[in-house]
Amino acid sequence: MGLIVWSLVHLEERFKDELRKEFTDVTFYFPRSLNEANGKLAEVDTIITYGEDLDEDHIKKANNLKWIMVFTSGIDRLPKEIIKEKEIIVTNVKGIHKVPMAEYALLMMLQTAKLNKVLIEDERNKLWRRMNLLTEIDEISSKTLFIVGAGQIGQEIARLAKAFQMKTVGFNRSGNHVDEFDECYPIQSLLKGLHQADFIISILPGTDATQHFWRKSHFMRMKPSAVFINIGRGKTVKEEDLLFVMKDKEIKHAVLDVFEQEPLEPKHPFWEMENITITPHIAGVSNRYHERALEIFQHNLRNKLRGSSDMINLVDLEKGY
Amino acid sequence: MGLIVWSLVHLEERFKDELRKEFTDVTFYFPRSLNEANGKLAEVDTIITYGEDLDEDHIKKANNLKWIMVFTSGIDRLPKEIIKEKEIIVTNVKGIHKVPMAEYALLMMLQTAKLNKVLIEDERNKLWRRMNLLTEIDEISSKTLFIVGAGQIGQEIARLAKAFQMKTVGFNRSGNHVDEFDECYPIQSLLKGLHQADFIISILPGTDATQHFWRKSHFMRMKPSAVFINIGRGKTVKEEDLLFVMKDKEIKHAVLDVFEQEPLEPKHPFWEMENITITPHIAGVSNRYHERALEIFQHNLRNKLRGSSDMINLVDLEKGY
Repeated sequence: MGLIVWSLVHLEERFKDELRKEFTDVTFYFPRSLNEANGKLAEVDTIITYGEDLDEDHIKKANNLKWIMVFTSGIDRLPKEIIKEKEIIVTNVKGIHKVPMAEYALLMMLQTAKLNKVLIEDERNKLWRRMNLLTEIDEISSKTLFIVGAGQIGQEIARLAKAFQMKTVGFNRSGNHVDEFDECYPIQSLLKGLHQADFIISILPGTDATQHFWRKSHFMRMKPSAVFINIGRGKTVKEEDLLFVMKDKEIKHAVLDVFEQEPLEPKHPFWEMENITITPHIAGVSNRYHERALEIFQHNLRNKLRGSSDMINLVDLEKGY
Repeated sequence: MGLIVWSLVHLEERFKDELRKEFTDVTFYFPRSLNEANGKLAEVDTIITYGEDLDEDHIKKANNLKWIMVFTSGIDRLPKEIIKEKEIIVTNVKGIHKVPMAEYALLMMLQTAKLNKVLIEDERNKLWRRMNLLTEIDEISSKTLFIVGAGQIGQEIARLAKAFQMKTVGFNRSGNHVDEFDECYPIQSLLKGLHQADFIISILPGTDATQHFWRKSHFMRMKPSAVFINIGRGKTVKEEDLLFVMKDKEIKHAVLDVFEQEPLEPKHPFWEMENITITPHIAGVSNRYHERALEIFQHNLRNKLRGSSDMINLVDLEKGY
């Protein structure tokens, strides 16, 4: 019996078949839960997981574990210390969120500019209402878009935004130029120019350095017509401050896909706000998620089987991504 | 007193000021209605209108009328015979709907692919629901888009769709190639390939030839997952047939901005259908509408004043556009 691979991610049958067909020397096991498989942890070489189920105890028991393939980009909830200690390789699916997140970003900019939620509400009420269209329905064309956290995903959003004739300004740690952006600056200089942005998209990762990055000082600098979109991590926003500025209508709209606490509790005041749009952390997801994640896994498994250590999307556990 | 120009279109003060400032030899008059101005019709040289208010009697009385500037693209409701007879020039605002309509088209494709109306409904209900995202939330990337009526607007939609990595197929009378399309075909060959389309956008104009162009035979050829979007004219669709196929869920969704009768009456069965999205004929409108329409008017007025007959967007009254 060759290599043993577990997938704690529930895969569609067609993907299971595909894996078994290509990797005939590998034994794939698809337990319904970690509990079901717990007794056999010592056998497994490779685990596919969303990174939310494995704890220190599991890793200790998994004596032969060499590789954890995480089907997400953040690894905040992996027991990092023991993984480092046991020199287990971790890879993730960085890059696969690019297309759905960029589509989400454009959808939300168009939706807010074109008052689409108002139109949907009118439709619910069977109301044919065209008043004030000439002043209220806006465009994204020629608007200025700030993307904070200008990496791979930001670049894809910027590429699409350029097609819509938007001006794209990127902010990252270095301030180094990234393709598809008209201008790039270091993140420290954000505050200075923030009054120029029509749309601000945050894709900041959730690290200690980005905790409560977005606070009153930022929001108060934005235009009254500005739209703030967070598709990064919830804890980068001080929600108390955002609630304050949205109650005072300091900016036009906030679109939030991520929150300090998820799921967002039913009593959270955000739900009641007409100038806040809430989606349940879905910006990066689509029906092509598993297909793209498995492409990365299959690439790496092929290399592993032929003895190559060349793996894509290796995670640096120190940096956390 | 020089040339007399009436605007039956209600313009913002800033635009009135701009016109008066540039064209000091022209007398601009902004009547609240045609009735208010009726007695003075014999004086006017140029009328700016949406083309819905002038009848044959008005044109007869307007002895000095040389030019009608229509702030829309269709001229269905102008009294064409008498205008031709009196050799009055008609120009329109062809081209200015391009940006808002293309943004509308992309918004609606993204909205349907990404189940955005479901997410908005969940938000109304304070419901954090992520089930089945991996099968239900789709993308527009790599999908096939058919644009029927591939002119200036279709080209702009195709340009944006290409940025989203869609395959763009255009249909027009000649089948001649139009930039930004991967393929172009004559409209007669549409039915044959229709089963390949994920999105079908109709931008057909409202002429005798396009009356009830879209009927059961077309809709039944579409994929069950297809989305049909009509931003052309309502009477190009046989609504009775569309209602039938949507009740039977033959296709996934229909997005309709135009209807056989507008406004759509509150009792119309379309309002009740979850798989139909209704907007009140707003796809081509935005807060930049007057600005862009006036650019065309100002260009033509400048030429007229310097005695040049070079006018953009001259309408051929025989063809109707």
